[in-house]
Amino acid sequence: MRPSGRELNEMRPVSIETGFTKHAEGSCLIKVGDTHVLCTATIEDRVPPFIKGTGLGWVTAEYGMLPRATNTRMRREASSGKQGGRTVEIQRLIGRALRAGVDRVALGERQITVDCDVLQADGGTRCASITGGWVALRLAVNKLMKAGDVQIDPLVDPVSAVSCGIYAGQPVLDLDYPEDSEAGVDGNFIMTGSGKLIEVQMSAEGSVFSRDQMDQLMDLAVKGTVELAEMQKAASK
Amino acid sequence: MRPSGRELNEMRPVSIETGFTKHAEGSCLIKVGDTHVLCTATIEDRVPPFIKGTGLGWVTAEYGMLPRATNTRMRREASSGKQGGRTVEIQRLIGRALRAGVDRVALGERQITVDCDVLQADGGTRCASITGGWVALRLAVNKLMKAGDVQIDPLVDPVSAVSCGIYAGQPVLDLDYPEDSEAGVDGNFIMTGSGKLIEVQMSAEGSVFSRDQMDQLMDLAVKGTVELAEMQKAASK
Amino acid sequence: MRPSGRELNEMRPVSIETGFTKHAEGSCLIKVGDTHVLCTATIEDRVPPFIKGTGLGWVTAEYGMLPRATNTRMRREASSGKQGGRTVEIQRLIGRALRAGVDRVALGERQITVDCDVLQADGGTRCASITGGWVALRLAVNKLMKAGDVQIDPLVDPVSAVSCGIYAGQPVLDLDYPEDSEAGVDGNFIMTGSGKLIEVQMSAEGSVFSRDQMDQLMDLAVKGTVELAEMQKAASK
Amino acid sequence: MRPSGRELNEMRPVSIETGFTKHAEGSCLIKVGDTHVLCTATIEDRVPPFIKGTGLGWVTAEYGMLPRATNTRMRREASSGKQGGRTVEIQRLIGRALRAGVDRVALGERQITVDCDVLQADGGTRCASITGGWVALRLAVNKLMKAGDVQIDPLVDPVSAVSCGIYAGQPVLDLDYPEDSEAGVDGNFIMTGSGKLIEVQMSAEGSVFSRDQMDQLMDLAVKGTVELAEMQKAASK
Amino acid sequence: MRPSGRELNEMRPVSIETGFTKHAEGSCLIKVGDTHVLCTATIEDRVPPFIKGTGLGWVTAEYGMLPRATNTRMRREASSGKQGGRTVEIQRLIGRALRAGVDRVALGERQITVDCDVLQADGGTRCASITGGWVALRLAVNKLMKAGDVQIDPLVDPVSAVSCGIYAGQPVLDLDYPEDSEAGVDGNFIMTGSGKLIEVQMSAEGSVFSRDQMDQLMDLAVKGTVELAEMQKAASK
Amino acid sequence: MRPSGRELNEMRPVSIETGFTKHAEGSCLIKVGDTHVLCTATIEDRVPPFIKGTGLGWVTAEYGMLPRATNTRMRREASSGKQGGRTVEIQRLIGRALRAGVDRVALGERQITVDCDVLQADGGTRCASITGGWVALRLAVNKLMKAGDVQIDPLVDPVSAVSCGIYAGQPVLDLDYPEDSEAGVDGNFIMTGSGKLIEVQMSAEGSVFSRDQMDQLMDLAVKGTVELAEMQKAASK
Repeated sequence: MRPSGRELNEMRPVSIETGFTKHAEGSCLIKVGDTHVLCTATIEDRVPPFIKGTGLGWVTAEYGMLPRATNTRMRREASSGKQGGRTVEIQRLIGRALRAGVDRVALGERQITVDCDVLQADGGTRCASITGGWVALRLAVNKLMKAGDVQIDPLVDPVSAVSCGIYAGQPVLDLDYPEDSEAGVDGNFIMTGSGKLIEVQMSAEGSVFSRDQMDQLMDLAVKGTVELAEMQKAASK
Repeated sequence: MRPSGRELNEMRPVSIETGFTKHAEGSCLIKVGDTHVLCTATIEDRVPPFIKGTGLGWVTAEYGMLPRATNTRMRREASSGKQGGRTVEIQRLIGRALRAGVDRVALGERQITVDCDVLQADGGTRCASITGGWVALRLAVNKLMKAGDVQIDPLVDPVSAVSCGIYAGQPVLDLDYPEDSEAGVDGNFIMTGSGKLIEVQMSAEGSVFSRDQMDQLMDLAVKGTVELAEMQKAASK
Repeated sequence: MRPSGRELNEMRPVSIETGFTKHAEGSCLIKVGDTHVLCTATIEDRVPPFIKGTGLGWVTAEYGMLPRATNTRMRREASSGKQGGRTVEIQRLIGRALRAGVDRVALGERQITVDCDVLQADGGTRCASITGGWVALRLAVNKLMKAGDVQIDPLVDPVSAVSCGIYAGQPVLDLDYPEDSEAGVDGNFIMTGSGKLIEVQMSAEGSVFSRDQMDQLMDLAVKGTVELAEMQKAASK
Repeated sequence: MRPSGRELNEMRPVSIETGFTKHAEGSCLIKVGDTHVLCTATIEDRVPPFIKGTGLGWVTAEYGMLPRATNTRMRREASSGKQGGRTVEIQRLIGRALRAGVDRVALGERQITVDCDVLQADGGTRCASITGGWVALRLAVNKLMKAGDVQIDPLVDPVSAVSCGIYAGQPVLDLDYPEDSEAGVDGNFIMTGSGKLIEVQMSAEGSVFSRDQMDQLMDLAVKGTVELAEMQKAASK
Repeated sequence: MRPSGRELNEMRPVSIETGFTKHAEGSCLIKVGDTHVLCTATIEDRVPPFIKGTGLGWVTAEYGMLPRATNTRMRREASSGKQGGRTVEIQRLIGRALRAGVDRVALGERQITVDCDVLQADGGTRCASITGGWVALRLAVNKLMKAGDVQIDPLVDPVSAVSCGIYAGQPVLDLDYPEDSEAGVDGNFIMTGSGKLIEVQMSAEGSVFSRDQMDQLMDLAVKGTVELAEMQKAASK
Repeated sequence: MRPSGRELNEMRPVSIETGFTKHAEGSCLIKVGDTHVLCTATIEDRVPPFIKGTGLGWVTAEYGMLPRATNTRMRREASSGKQGGRTVEIQRLIGRALRAGVDRVALGERQITVDCDVLQADGGTRCASITGGWVALRLAVNKLMKAGDVQIDPLVDPVSAVSCGIYAGQPVLDLDYPEDSEAGVDGNFIMTGSGKLIEVQMSAEGSVFSRDQMDQLMDLAVKGTVELAEMQKAASK
């Protein structure tokens, strides 16, 4: 039995509130259970030096957690003088994930920065960031297309992410914090709305796993991301 | 005429939603017009070294702004490796302001950290942080008192803050961003609910002002903080 | 009675020795009692990016304290890897104060950096820095005018600063360190030689104050800055 | 055809020279083709604060690359003042991988730090670091067991890693740099000598992949790590 | 002919004003020509960890330059976030030099920190810092002996330093800035009052030198340090 | 008697393996006894700003030590966020030494960076770095000359370095770590193959020395650097 009483293959309730902040070209507050992430997308005309003049666009992401998003207060990264290893790892993952769903030629030579800031954490913040981040990105691109700055839609297929793991010996979908802190194996699965894989990370901490278990987690992930893709489309219409 | 159409002595609409996040001992989302700040209060048993063993409590504050809280995206302080001068100045101000309203003997040897994170900015973020920060502090102290950890209420009088300035030659209450960026003189006034002064900062950028103007701004500030104190009390009952 | 035996409205002895260092375009060693600050002004042709091409000039300030300027040795900021919050707050204040007294059109597109380094501290270092910093600035501008690089004097009115506070229940002028460390309320008042206000900061640490007290401190500050302006003029003739 | 002329499922030549440096408790220079990594293991009696007093051991890793290990010189991380995101990500991966193969109870309350420094890079440095790092760890543990400080062998099964990817439309084993820089999909597979999975990371940059492709890469990875495990055992006997 | 008109073996005028600041246990302003350095010595009861409990004392030094001590303004090290390589090199040299003249057993388990801050630079700041630093140290030790905290004088012989170099083909004593910036070879010589050597550094930038030239510079250095030792003794009586 | 059984004027065995890494324009692994340093030379077309457009070349150096090059593990400088004072001092020394042997006009407007990374340390790492660094530089310049990019050989005379010191009262050549940690006086001598001096540093830690001792150390250094110059020439033919 899961602590939340959910079925093994049941996601937490998900809501996506778009337009949560007024300045960003795209924004939403995504809630996956008690995990709440504010995602904003910022369009800028400049691109990183390594693609200047190529005509290609760029999508990048930054990730942060408010100090008291968690059960005990964490030190503010701005005051400790650097982003921790976990933060760096997560924001690189979000950026790679979103870029995989972007036609960079169609986007044109501009950069979109997706900021994902966790207001409240209860497990799965990186997956919620990717799922919500894609919605913010979608809204920003809608604005570009409406203004005629972009002609061909560079976002062909939604990108969403979900975590799965082995909890109490059972494969479960969408780990919350109590499950995540106990799971011997967990994975993050990033997929497109049409079921293609973008990134798969499975990891055992103090444990190992088999190919069979890997396949069971994959099956759950496919179910979850299909559901998420529907919600993304509904929210960003 | 003010850009927003407000009267000279009229504040923006204010709302305070308590319990906005679940982990913090006290939390609220304060909205002063389009300025939205998430305030959380964290209770910890440790105190800073310089008061260890004195039996006195401590209240401190940290301030941050999400990168796209503003009209154009600002660089994330965690990634630039340090808090900017403005951030440091503001969080020291918030801490001083809140401490001025605390009976540190009654609080006992514990620390409360108030985090003020601006989700959306439209002028007056430091004042909204102080006003909302006090509500988060109040809620955290309520919890301590309910648990019997604190017997005498250490928060005698609410602390709130408002900005005033000379805009287009007229003294106005509660500057929003369009006013703030044009005002030759502006000030922040931090007061108690019973009308005592805690901190006054008036500053002219590229200009000067007279004692008469100073007195007019003071009058407006008194009006504003009296209104804010009522809302703080209502929100934190 | 004040520890120093001074009258309530009596400043410490002030001296201003100009030309204390030979390289700077303007320099002085200001002594306000036992507070000694070396102020230098450096003229550079470059301006900050945000005013490039506007024809406007810029004045900025940096502040530092030698490690053993104080009673116990403080850690050197260069070796601790960053300027502390107090330093940042003070140097921003000095810069704003000096800029308020400058006609930036008349100055022309150049930058003057005023460095204020405290050799010995006994309270009131930020005020002494502003007062001495203006003299260094005045001397540097004199050099520009003499060379014909600036035609219209951009410094219309001297800028000086003094601290006042409530010590032992009495409003007193020009707090020294023993008073400053005991005062429940203190303020810094920055004014022009003709009595206009530039910046007012009054703050209660663990206390509150009334509008009457605020007015009494203002009265003292006017007396102090009038005296300082005379000394500035005499020193920089 | 692969640039190196290798078969699709053929690894580069691997050599492991143990005892490459004299001070470390365990050390080796691993060469996987032209990728050369110096791995050292250091035993210390202290453990991180979060496991102090638990009787459990800890294994951690650090990763670095000499500035001219690569085709063009990279900036030295020590002089740029921080470890880059890639470095942080890699060293966290190495640490997790090695810990997964350690019985932390049997190790006892001590820490082993594995340093992996790339002397020459030609793709696959993180995998070579894990494979060579395990050998250094094995040698250090041998020393502990010989000295009687550890009774039960905490390293039950070797840990090794190999990269696989889709290159020119084909799944290939052990990507070298020319392949790695062209591959649309690549993955790192960390396994035990007995074929259990520890960590799987598959990622598409500017592309997507299917579950079939994922399974093909897994098959190659199993072949590669079985071969590596044999070499690890031979080297650390 | 030297730019200053001095003889080849003639030092610049030297003055040492003791008690320049009031808080430090020892202080002086040393002027070697136009090079002015404020030296303070601070006594603390703590010692660095590596000698705790040994009964030995420690002497260390820090060095800084005010931003406009030089002809063009240098960036403040506190604001650039670190001490430059030159600063680090110099302060390590000063510390080693002063320690060489201290009987650390006689000093007892306490630390004296000598801060050398250059107010005005005209060549030879490291040598002036050592010479003046020793005077500040002497004064601080005098205070310890007078208070009975130290019984046996730990400073047996004064330590002073002078630079020499090959300027325009000639060996010259005590280089000023115009000479220093032209000299192909220069050296710093640190000696005791009784003519023993503590540290010798000779360096050619874009040039080489012979053993004969080395000997000529040594002869000049002996002359210079003998004169400085007399002044040190006179100043610190 | 020396711990190693060497004669007073006997160097440790020296070997220089060129081409140790494949990417650098020049590289070698130099072994001076148990001190092993990997030296690489990187040619870049850019030069530092202060010589841009002068037609002059530049040679600079960076120095590092792998964490477990030493007997106990040292903290990795990249993770501690800055290069230590000792590192900075050493790499500046290496750069100055190598530049002294370079005809910067003949080199032309390009920069060569020599990286010296200590794989294993047993005393004398800075001297081995200079000696090996020159070989890497020589090989890189050979490549430039072969390609016709440089016509006149900018390296007229090899540059090598050796340490000497007073150990157990006797002057000895080429200190190893056990000697270095006991020596009261030690020095680094950098010379050209034809016996000219480039840099001499002699230093007493907790001791003093005489001119006679200085001369004895010089004599030993000449012997050592003559031997090293022969090996450099043989290695880089």
